[in-house]
Amino acid sequence: MAPPSEVDEAIEVLSRTPGLLERWLEGLSEPWLSAREGEGTYSPLDVVAHLTDNEDVDWMPRLELVLEHGESRPFTPFDREGFRRRFDGWPLERLLARFATTRRANLDRLEALALRAPDLDRTGMHPAFGRVTVRQLLAGWVVHDLTHVAQIARVLAKRYRDAVGPWREYMGVLGDREPERR
Amino acid sequence: MAPPSEVDEAIEVLSRTPGLLERWLEGLSEPWLSAREGEGTYSPLDVVAHLTDNEDVDWMPRLELVLEHGESRPFTPFDREGFRRRFDGWPLERLLARFATTRRANLDRLEALALRAPDLDRTGMHPAFGRVTVRQLLAGWVVHDLTHVAQIARVLAKRYRDAVGPWREYMGVLGDREPERR
Repeated sequence: MAPPSEVDEAIEVLSRTPGLLERWLEGLSEPWLSAREGEGTYSPLDVVAHLTDNEDVDWMPRLELVLEHGESRPFTPFDREGFRRRFDGWPLERLLARFATTRRANLDRLEALALRAPDLDRTGMHPAFGRVTVRQLLAGWVVHDLTHVAQIARVLAKRYRDAVGPWREYMGVLGDREPERR
Repeated sequence: MAPPSEVDEAIEVLSRTPGLLERWLEGLSEPWLSAREGEGTYSPLDVVAHLTDNEDVDWMPRLELVLEHGESRPFTPFDREGFRRRFDGWPLERLLARFATTRRANLDRLEALALRAPDLDRTGMHPAFGRVTVRQLLAGWVVHDLTHVAQIARVLAKRYRDAVGPWREYMGVLGDREPERR
């Protein structure tokens, strides 16, 4: 069997994120779901709302924009606080279901494009970075999921930062950087 | 409804880890499962083997030792490379099944103890740290899971450290500390 292509490999990870969040977070009590590292940072619930928001307008729509218009139409900047209005009051279960549906639809579109190596080299215009390739965009989508999975683990862990006592020095996650918000 | 007790709260997280790993990792291709940050560090597959090994001898057995013997019997040091011999050649699915079964049995024992606040203050003897409480041990168990979940996210993400191009600066996980091995 041939090794997975770059696109297939990305889809492997992207397709699993909604399910892992569901198994991890559904049914967790409020102190866990609303834990935060500080004012203006994301709780685990916020992360899921952010991913749901992001899934509508960020990676896949941008990828399609590049394929259609190249560098002539820069991406619309993403509002990283937009989810707070859009999904205000949505419970976790509703967000997870919405995220899973949108992700599935996006991956169906991605698969239907049947991208080949030259497509991955095509370029678009990021509002802050300038020229970016489809290959970078696809990798960015994957790593964006993973950075937020790591963020949830870190935010949950930090509730017990003091509670672990001397184990603190063994627990790398407690020393991780302060929060990203993207 | 009363808020969850410290023990219930810990069980919420501990009971979800096997399922989230299953949904995340089962079926991932070999390049993802064997990704590493460097010589002697854990791949995602190694992390699952480590958690499986750890589950047999570390947190719950130590907790029971404290309740039975207090500080009079120090914990046996944990061999963080022991899984390499013990589970040599085990595929992911077998490790995940074994981890899930052992975790469930350990949480059943924990629930059966019906610990109360004074039990959480009882103390045992850690081979490196000295005196530790049951409360710290329980928190350490939770944070140990989370530090390894964050590690898997980080190790997977770093495969695309260069591939993301300019997105690198937005992806906090790529800048996280070098690997923990516990």
